[in-house]
Amino acid sequence: MSAGHPGQLMAAEMAEQPAVLRRILTEGAGPIREVAEHIAARGPRFVLLTGRGTSDNAALYAKYLLEILLGKPCGLTSMSTTTAYAAKPDLTDCLVIAVSQSGGSPDLVSSTVSAREAGAVTLAVTNNPESPLAGAAEFHIDVLAGPERALPATKTYTAELLALYLLVESLRGGDGVAAAAALPELAERIIDRQEEVRRLAGRYRFAERMVLTSRGYGYPTAREAALKLMETSYIPALAYSGADLLHGPLAMVDNVSPVIAIVTEGRGGQALQAVLDRLRDRGADLVVVGPQGQVDAASAGFALPTAGVPEELQPILEILPLQRLAYEVTLARGQDPDAPRALAKVTETR
Amino acid sequence: MSAGHPGQLMAAEMAEQPAVLRRILTEGAGPIREVAEHIAARGPRFVLLTGRGTSDNAALYAKYLLEILLGKPCGLTSMSTTTAYAAKPDLTDCLVIAVSQSGGSPDLVSSTVSAREAGAVTLAVTNNPESPLAGAAEFHIDVLAGPERALPATKTYTAELLALYLLVESLRGGDGVAAAAALPELAERIIDRQEEVRRLAGRYRFAERMVLTSRGYGYPTAREAALKLMETSYIPALAYSGADLLHGPLAMVDNVSPVIAIVTEGRGGQALQAVLDRLRDRGADLVVVGPQGQVDAASAGFALPTAGVPEELQPILEILPLQRLAYEVTLARGQDPDAPRALAKVTETR
Repeated sequence: MSAGHPGQLMAAEMAEQPAVLRRILTEGAGPIREVAEHIAARGPRFVLLTGRGTSDNAALYAKYLLEILLGKPCGLTSMSTTTAYAAKPDLTDCLVIAVSQSGGSPDLVSSTVSAREAGAVTLAVTNNPESPLAGAAEFHIDVLAGPERALPATKTYTAELLALYLLVESLRGGDGVAAAAALPELAERIIDRQEEVRRLAGRYRFAERMVLTSRGYGYPTAREAALKLMETSYIPALAYSGADLLHGPLAMVDNVSPVIAIVTEGRGGQALQAVLDRLRDRGADLVVVGPQGQVDAASAGFALPTAGVPEELQPILEILPLQRLAYEVTLARGQDPDAPRALAKVTETR
Repeated sequence: MSAGHPGQLMAAEMAEQPAVLRRILTEGAGPIREVAEHIAARGPRFVLLTGRGTSDNAALYAKYLLEILLGKPCGLTSMSTTTAYAAKPDLTDCLVIAVSQSGGSPDLVSSTVSAREAGAVTLAVTNNPESPLAGAAEFHIDVLAGPERALPATKTYTAELLALYLLVESLRGGDGVAAAAALPELAERIIDRQEEVRRLAGRYRFAERMVLTSRGYGYPTAREAALKLMETSYIPALAYSGADLLHGPLAMVDNVSPVIAIVTEGRGGQALQAVLDRLRDRGADLVVVGPQGQVDAASAGFALPTAGVPEELQPILEILPLQRLAYEVTLARGQDPDAPRALAKVTETR
């Protein structure tokens, strides 16, 4: 799978992210606004989101946007209810959004077909307008990330996030382009700080487990970072919302379970504060990805340029050092991030 | 916290489960049917479910029931959208169900109050009719489990499952009592097989991580078993739906990551078959909780009496040997299952 040195594909694709974000803001925003106008005209009242793996984390991000910014009740689907149990819910007034990098998973295609038959407005968000999923849904948004060849998804994740953000902003009657305009350059600056991430990676080279936590908009980042770490380095990485962490898994956190907290500048970060204090009281090794002040109060971290970036856009930046961290930890452990054992790029679950 | 020997409280409460199930079927079913009639008369079209920790897993079980048996689109709430971000979705035609053992978590109370103000029909399912949550919701179902003193929730989990099952069956116009009538005796027979579970526990005494998987109705069991193992034994236990396992985390499964699969007799188990085959191909240490035939095809397991038990009721039995497994592994590791470090019974997240 890998041509050349280990991790070459993943490194190249991570580095493309600023350009992909720029492309979405210039070429993507118009078509997204058009799709949003069609959908808004249908007046959906509820939204169901579907995805697997990395795209499920992008769907979760969209759920926060839709609930907070658009005031729509949302759910993430349990796909087996339609694919295994043939449930036939009445989906009148529902918008069903299927998110998929490849647009090729048979279960997503079949659950989208079922949703459309059940009366839903269906939208596919994919990186391939020729894919079966794009064809199955009534509407399609192309995330314009270009071919992704490394098995761990990186540029398609941030592309999905930005496309979903522009969609929700367009559904609200704006377009989000101005608010997001600074992202490509900020992403570039973060990606240039590889040496900092490499130093952080050193502390996880021999880790046997990791815990990731956040709250609100940062929570999908915690889940995506955990997935990235697991699928590349095979370190068991557990992601919890800060609130759930206090309901059980906290018992597992001690000085042998390093914790990475994603702290947004905003209400999610504020809601996480009590959890951070509790972790510090327990002597946890706490690494923060977030604003400089939060990094300074932790054992170590990666400071994000959050000034002027609305909280709901910070996830697009937060994941960048964490993708790189997964990459660096994997190289340090002598493995190839491009080709995790046992995985295929299109997963044929049914 | 523990009076007497380690794990005494948890053992006593696990053993009470057949009696609690019997009590719900006799004393609980009538009041549940009444609540269901009131709710059905309001004709909710969409259901949102809320819970934390163990009760979140019970809420997930209810989501499968509501989607498959009742055909209602459902979502699990991201509580921070209302508590941290003050989102004000329009919840007309929505049923919001909050599940909580104590009924005392401030965030559940405040999100239920918000939901009621936003037009939702609100229902609290708790083990305490005098609790703030029971008072905040328009309707209340008492799960009748009696006081729970051990920190790991056991009898309140199975009680929540059965109460939610009876609710959904009543919303469909039946009551579910006849279908569930065999459960108390089957639960008793499973609980009597402690020696079998103790033998299984031996293989996890030195485990550094565990993976739990299932699909469909068994998936909430996988999550609850992982939570139980983590909060008592502190082993990092990761739960994935079988489909998600193939999208990344499978890279992590090898001969040092034992896997426990919960295999329902029915469509969920059938949908899991390809995942079980893949795990066997990879030489995973696969322990199955499910029908005898599935146990025989695995490295080891615990055979459940599933004959004549509808698939949707099997989760109430599946969790019993796994609760006991968490208990036995914890004792074998020299810890006290009753009082995991760092946890409080009512978690005051906001």
